[in-house]
Amino acid sequence: MYLELDGQGPRYAQLIRAMKAAILDGRMAAGSRLSPSRTLARELGLSRNTVLAAYEQLQAEGFLLARVGSGSYVANVGNKTPVRRAPERLVAPLSAFARRALANTDGRHIPGRQHGDLRYNLQYGVPLANPLLAGAWRREVGRAADRADFDYPDAQGLAALRVQICDYLSRRRGVPADPEDVLVVSGTQQAFALAARVLLEPGDGVVLEEPHYRGARQAFSAHGAHARGCRVDADGIVPSALPHGSRMAVVTPSHQFPTGALLPLVRRMELLEWAAREHAWLIEDDYDGEFRYGGRPLAALKSLDRDGRVLYIGSFSKALFPSLRLGYMVVPASLRDAFVAAKWLEDRGCNTLEQSALARFMADGGFERHLRRAAVALRARRAAMLAGLRRHAGAAVQVVDSNAGMHLAVWLNGANHGDCERLVAHARTRGLGLYPVAPYYLKPPPRPGLVLGYAGLPPADIEAAMKLLGRCLKETGIGGG
Amino acid sequence: MYLELDGQGPRYAQLIRAMKAAILDGRMAAGSRLSPSRTLARELGLSRNTVLAAYEQLQAEGFLLARVGSGSYVANVGNKTPVRRAPERLVAPLSAFARRALANTDGRHIPGRQHGDLRYNLQYGVPLANPLLAGAWRREVGRAADRADFDYPDAQGLAALRVQICDYLSRRRGVPADPEDVLVVSGTQQAFALAARVLLEPGDGVVLEEPHYRGARQAFSAHGAHARGCRVDADGIVPSALPHGSRMAVVTPSHQFPTGALLPLVRRMELLEWAAREHAWLIEDDYDGEFRYGGRPLAALKSLDRDGRVLYIGSFSKALFPSLRLGYMVVPASLRDAFVAAKWLEDRGCNTLEQSALARFMADGGFERHLRRAAVALRARRAAMLAGLRRHAGAAVQVVDSNAGMHLAVWLNGANHGDCERLVAHARTRGLGLYPVAPYYLKPPPRPGLVLGYAGLPPADIEAAMKLLGRCLKETGIGGG
Repeated sequence: MYLELDGQGPRYAQLIRAMKAAILDGRMAAGSRLSPSRTLARELGLSRNTVLAAYEQLQAEGFLLARVGSGSYVANVGNKTPVRRAPERLVAPLSAFARRALANTDGRHIPGRQHGDLRYNLQYGVPLANPLLAGAWRREVGRAADRADFDYPDAQGLAALRVQICDYLSRRRGVPADPEDVLVVSGTQQAFALAARVLLEPGDGVVLEEPHYRGARQAFSAHGAHARGCRVDADGIVPSALPHGSRMAVVTPSHQFPTGALLPLVRRMELLEWAAREHAWLIEDDYDGEFRYGGRPLAALKSLDRDGRVLYIGSFSKALFPSLRLGYMVVPASLRDAFVAAKWLEDRGCNTLEQSALARFMADGGFERHLRRAAVALRARRAAMLAGLRRHAGAAVQVVDSNAGMHLAVWLNGANHGDCERLVAHARTRGLGLYPVAPYYLKPPPRPGLVLGYAGLPPADIEAAMKLLGRCLKETGIGGG
Repeated sequence: MYLELDGQGPRYAQLIRAMKAAILDGRMAAGSRLSPSRTLARELGLSRNTVLAAYEQLQAEGFLLARVGSGSYVANVGNKTPVRRAPERLVAPLSAFARRALANTDGRHIPGRQHGDLRYNLQYGVPLANPLLAGAWRREVGRAADRADFDYPDAQGLAALRVQICDYLSRRRGVPADPEDVLVVSGTQQAFALAARVLLEPGDGVVLEEPHYRGARQAFSAHGAHARGCRVDADGIVPSALPHGSRMAVVTPSHQFPTGALLPLVRRMELLEWAAREHAWLIEDDYDGEFRYGGRPLAALKSLDRDGRVLYIGSFSKALFPSLRLGYMVVPASLRDAFVAAKWLEDRGCNTLEQSALARFMADGGFERHLRRAAVALRARRAAMLAGLRRHAGAAVQVVDSNAGMHLAVWLNGANHGDCERLVAHARTRGLGLYPVAPYYLKPPPRPGLVLGYAGLPPADIEAAMKLLGRCLKETGIGGG
């Protein structure tokens, strides 16, 4: 009997693996007698006890039979055809969803971010690194661990957190909501995924702003919905351009993503009229409504919703940090049960510990203190970016100012999409991470542009990054540089 | 102008809400002039500053217009038809998924558990309350908060955690896995939900053991799959009874749920042959393989999988506690990309903090120390339940012993399903929470029985609960009293 050990882990386990493999692929045939333990031990250079322990385990698992007075035999494990170690291939076809999911994501790890090699990364979504928040969060999490419940959570979300969310929404976003209307979800992405499953059949139309947040398009497209774009101008989505025959529109009225436009009241009313006429749902993605640097924040579209057509989505990824994976939806009463059921079927609710920590953080005022501090920091970063763009990019870019959020959009003057790609590639070689606006469009954007996130870098780095951007613009000849 | 304040929250916000409502429903018509702030303040008993602040906000939001020298006017907000406060009704039909989701769950909150009124709750899934674990977990979480990354997580799961899971699986479950094969999910429920979406079209057949874990059936049925039962006997699932023409079978070979049977090797091989013949997937739900009270644990079915047909699911809900919401899948290489994409589209990955805490807890040996301690505690609880059943339930029940897990199944001798329902209702009035086996079946079970969870109660309480069970059996005349 020839057995090759694979050298991984304890020798006892190696021997078991090797013998199972030999039995399963027929090299050790059913009914054949085993080498005595002493012999095998000598052959393999193992202790006899190791071999005996392996035999015992294999017997317990049914691979070996012991006959009184006559040693051990290989059991008939029923492998009528020898199992070949086939190269792995698809046993059965993937679902249509899975094929669309693969087509609508960017590849395996869909990182996190791989920007270790970049000196300055201007990717949108990189969080504001905030030592004060880290300390406060550590304290809250420790306290939450002291009082947290070990049992299954409420699938709708921790009641104490839902109460805090309602209080926050009513004071800061003008949305009157009852804790019964709130569903805690694992981030905005899950809100889109649940909305797709609960409200849309494959083939249904869903209207996206053009440009729009990609995660929404990816979720809806993977579900099989038919994504259709609607024009956006300097005031945000253009309601007169909304197509007929869609089940839903996803809108960002407080801060159009990524252009930053603030939708005027009249257009908000037109959105609601469109929804009423079309029997359609509106999904309001209020993704970073917390951070405004001029004027009061407008109340959310949801505050105008009197017929239960608006589903409101809020996120803690921007207000706190993305690795938290917590967000929430406010859904019309007519949809509550269906959304809670869909959430239960997906994951039985979000984990308790961080919901509990967040509820206390909000109740104690720590959350809004953090928001105020973060707004101050972000305002300085934004100012540094605006000044840097003026100083170093000059006439080469047109800034789409927005008074809010964690990024700026800029158009590249006198450039085409090829120029933009060259710029991004060239900047990367210089350690500057730039991100074109094109992936946020269904169709090619009217002109090339960049989305410049400023949350992740301190002002001095932003100034340096803008200087580098200016150099890259010159080196690629964009804007007449 | 008559305005009624709703008394909720700050008066400034109340006034804004009241005026918005009046404007939106036409009581304050477009173009009409506003009462001077002083007048309105007097009428409503508010300070003038409150009224001015509200006017200012309403103007900022576009509800009011100020004309130089002539006060403020109501803006035309485009509500051509007065908006009526309609009773909330469904704006558009729910998806077929949503309708099935509602039909396949137990109602809104799908608690958690509502057992505050029960003295002894024998519900399966109530975790082992463990002060040592609580303390250890608090420490790990605190440490994790110190080092946790704020950025988006890896959608596949924290690499350090996947490494630990592989080490654990290879040593304890005989499953050789590479960290690239592992996907961290939000509990077993999400593993089923992802498997349904990635592998099944609505209408596809999925085989469930009869009886089986309900959460799996609920996830697959809501997806639109056609659930079909397969007979289980004292050795577990009967492979010769597996139906033709299904895409998948969900099996619990290490500890059949809820009968506790351990599937022999020959049947495991037959399962694999069935899957090869049918081009079907096998989902191995190894839900509480950690706790065995006699004999060595058998290696998982996945360890026999040489063609990549088996998807292995592990859970930390039983090994640690359910409010953690962490579990994992080991998927064949041919399915990895599709599962990672589906996870990303759903929630962009599990939250970092608890993944990080768990990775360290496993690396430092705390996890396996906890498992050993928990097994000792569970063994004592199981012994108390077995002894109590013998003493107090006697001939009325037949225990299905299983040597593993956190529950026992018992059949009720000489009783019908009506008797079982009466027993459960009667026991509840006495403060004893009993749970019939019937909901774990697609079809009515061959005989009535109970699933008795013993993790949540200390041995003395279990003894008392069994005594109470004995009394309830007598009082309802089951087993000849």
